[in-house]
Amino acid sequence: MRTPGMCLDAVRANSPLIHCITNYVTVNDVANVILACGASPIMSDDVGEVEEITSICSGLCINIGTLNVRTIESMKAAGVKAESLGHPILLDPVGAGASSLRTNTALDLMETIRFDAIRGNMSEIKTLIVGSGTTKGVDADAADAVTEETLDGAVHFLKEAAGRMHTILAVTGAIDLVTDGMVCYVIRNGCPEMGHITGTGCQLSGMMTAFLAANEEQKLQAAAAAVAAMGLAGETGRAHLAACEGNATLRNRIIDAVSLMDGQVLDAGARIEQI
Amino acid sequence: MRTPGMCLDAVRANSPLIHCITNYVTVNDVANVILACGASPIMSDDVGEVEEITSICSGLCINIGTLNVRTIESMKAAGVKAESLGHPILLDPVGAGASSLRTNTALDLMETIRFDAIRGNMSEIKTLIVGSGTTKGVDADAADAVTEETLDGAVHFLKEAAGRMHTILAVTGAIDLVTDGMVCYVIRNGCPEMGHITGTGCQLSGMMTAFLAANEEQKLQAAAAAVAAMGLAGETGRAHLAACEGNATLRNRIIDAVSLMDGQVLDAGARIEQI
Amino acid sequence: MRTPGMCLDAVRANSPLIHCITNYVTVNDVANVILACGASPIMSDDVGEVEEITSICSGLCINIGTLNVRTIESMKAAGVKAESLGHPILLDPVGAGASSLRTNTALDLMETIRFDAIRGNMSEIKTLIVGSGTTKGVDADAADAVTEETLDGAVHFLKEAAGRMHTILAVTGAIDLVTDGMVCYVIRNGCPEMGHITGTGCQLSGMMTAFLAANEEQKLQAAAAAVAAMGLAGETGRAHLAACEGNATLRNRIIDAVSLMDGQVLDAGARIEQI
Repeated sequence: MRTPGMCLDAVRANSPLIHCITNYVTVNDVANVILACGASPIMSDDVGEVEEITSICSGLCINIGTLNVRTIESMKAAGVKAESLGHPILLDPVGAGASSLRTNTALDLMETIRFDAIRGNMSEIKTLIVGSGTTKGVDADAADAVTEETLDGAVHFLKEAAGRMHTILAVTGAIDLVTDGMVCYVIRNGCPEMGHITGTGCQLSGMMTAFLAANEEQKLQAAAAAVAAMGLAGETGRAHLAACEGNATLRNRIIDAVSLMDGQVLDAGARIEQI
Repeated sequence: MRTPGMCLDAVRANSPLIHCITNYVTVNDVANVILACGASPIMSDDVGEVEEITSICSGLCINIGTLNVRTIESMKAAGVKAESLGHPILLDPVGAGASSLRTNTALDLMETIRFDAIRGNMSEIKTLIVGSGTTKGVDADAADAVTEETLDGAVHFLKEAAGRMHTILAVTGAIDLVTDGMVCYVIRNGCPEMGHITGTGCQLSGMMTAFLAANEEQKLQAAAAAVAAMGLAGETGRAHLAACEGNATLRNRIIDAVSLMDGQVLDAGARIEQI
Repeated sequence: MRTPGMCLDAVRANSPLIHCITNYVTVNDVANVILACGASPIMSDDVGEVEEITSICSGLCINIGTLNVRTIESMKAAGVKAESLGHPILLDPVGAGASSLRTNTALDLMETIRFDAIRGNMSEIKTLIVGSGTTKGVDADAADAVTEETLDGAVHFLKEAAGRMHTILAVTGAIDLVTDGMVCYVIRNGCPEMGHITGTGCQLSGMMTAFLAANEEQKLQAAAAAVAAMGLAGETGRAHLAACEGNATLRNRIIDAVSLMDGQVLDAGARIEQI
């Protein structure tokens, strides 16, 4: 079984090309973190080219953060094509629960496309599983937080859903959970400050797609490795902040840390527990 | 009456969710500065969801920086809904005067929606008031600059217009003016280098919307507080620049400074005069 | 003949307004680097205003990085207008060869508009010249790399094509080539790490448009100067990286270096050979 570090090394060795249909808020960070972990991004959302673009790629990341009628069609076309080619496909249901358009689009995409992984915060994922959540915009509602107290219940809830949905569910927050329905990884990397900058979730989705594409035989381990890598980058980035440095510098330091990370560093820093 | 620092502390205490329909050039910085001041951003511009999204928010920021036919409809729909709910609404008329589409869209929005505040540079605001200005793209024309010499005339001009338009006008430049028609605040924070990075105006508009949402009883003070906070962050950011650091690092340091600022720091650094 | 430094100083002296129709991935960096070199950017892509916007500008940069059916029409309208006004126009054919839409759009734009310069990696430019290339997404294929071994052939190939196409071709990679068909400049500034962050090519295209607009009498020299300036900024940025700093900080340091660069620094650091 591949360690997290081996999963990262595989990304750097294979340098998979990742097709992203993603929001315009965090798209630059997503591109840069995909490059930082050793893969290559291509952003493309016109329905006239997404099938062709996804065909030359090794993975597809669909993020509905600033969805619109035009790009929703592109997401579907790209997803159907990528699935037909056997490429790993990831859904980031940003803001599911915050509007009917977002919830319905996410559900519609899940009916049309077989996602290898769905990554979001607990409120978003709950919305997709039970049809309702208490999303606060694009952030998880405090009531949905996974804590040491609610951990067992959350693991049970997600394992059951992942098994039923035949996908990997990756729920990130103070404690991160990654499960395929049989195994659940509990990951305790990261720092609270990551929630105060935009895009760490989107970045993780992009990077996770690269990890899936470079580790197709061990997707669950790859997804967990990406979560640990992002969290570890947050810890490293935070450790290097000077007194005058805050949110924006942390944002940069996280991508810096990913770009400087190798397998050995990730294996030493990953805090992953299997339950 | 709330001090600037009290206004900032109210943002951190209430953490209002701010709906932004904004340009794709500076959107990431806008999201990050809204988070940095203690609020939460959600970017959404599809007409199929903007009413629902704005309903779960506490304020709406409309920025026409990269407007298009699709998003103009969304701006109107969101604005009408937000107004019906009594949410503070801010307009940033980026580039008004640079094209008929921008000027007419801004004027049209002002006829359709009752804005609590309009923030721009003097050329943009002049265009909206007198129907013409000498905009140099998205930057103010030098002829429109508010200086110590032109200050009295500018204050008179803006107070009259704000009173007639029943809105707060916030004009930023070397000297910043914020007026509701009765009172005018003259703010002397900031540094010239802020004009050499893109997005400090857009960021201020996003942050000002958060200040308005968290201080609904004292909107004029809240608007002035946001202006002072942005300017102070520019001063702080500039003070921390090393010799090899220029525009891009300053951009980051400004957001850093906002994220590290508290009410006490803002009250100590704000240079606001009432006339 | 103007030195690279004189070309840069002309940008700072004239501060040309540059109209960009560019992708949403790197648009913020493009705006910031245009400001950093002393010019002013305006991003505008709605067909209802692009002709008017480009009329108040001094140069037009068209970048197809995230093209869509709506913006393709805007690119054409803006280009035709800018050409009628004699403004320098640059094409950045991002991802030409990666999809038919990109290749055909680039070729179609080249038939409709007379570009003063076309800047891309070798795979993109080859696609435009011979109708096919081996593009790896938005990055050049390794087989297309310009090395000391392939330099003579590449120079010959590009000179012939530039002469036939009546445009300046600027091909960037480990070794950069800029030719108008008669003269070819070989530029050896830059560092490999620039290829690991997104947007250095897009930024160069924006900055090159500013250089062309401020040096209309010596466009070939201006294009080469922009290439050298970007490369030198990369070298300077890399030299200032601390041990904990990686991709994201390098991205910032490059724009920092441009903002701090003057003509003297550029002339001292530019490594341009004419062949």
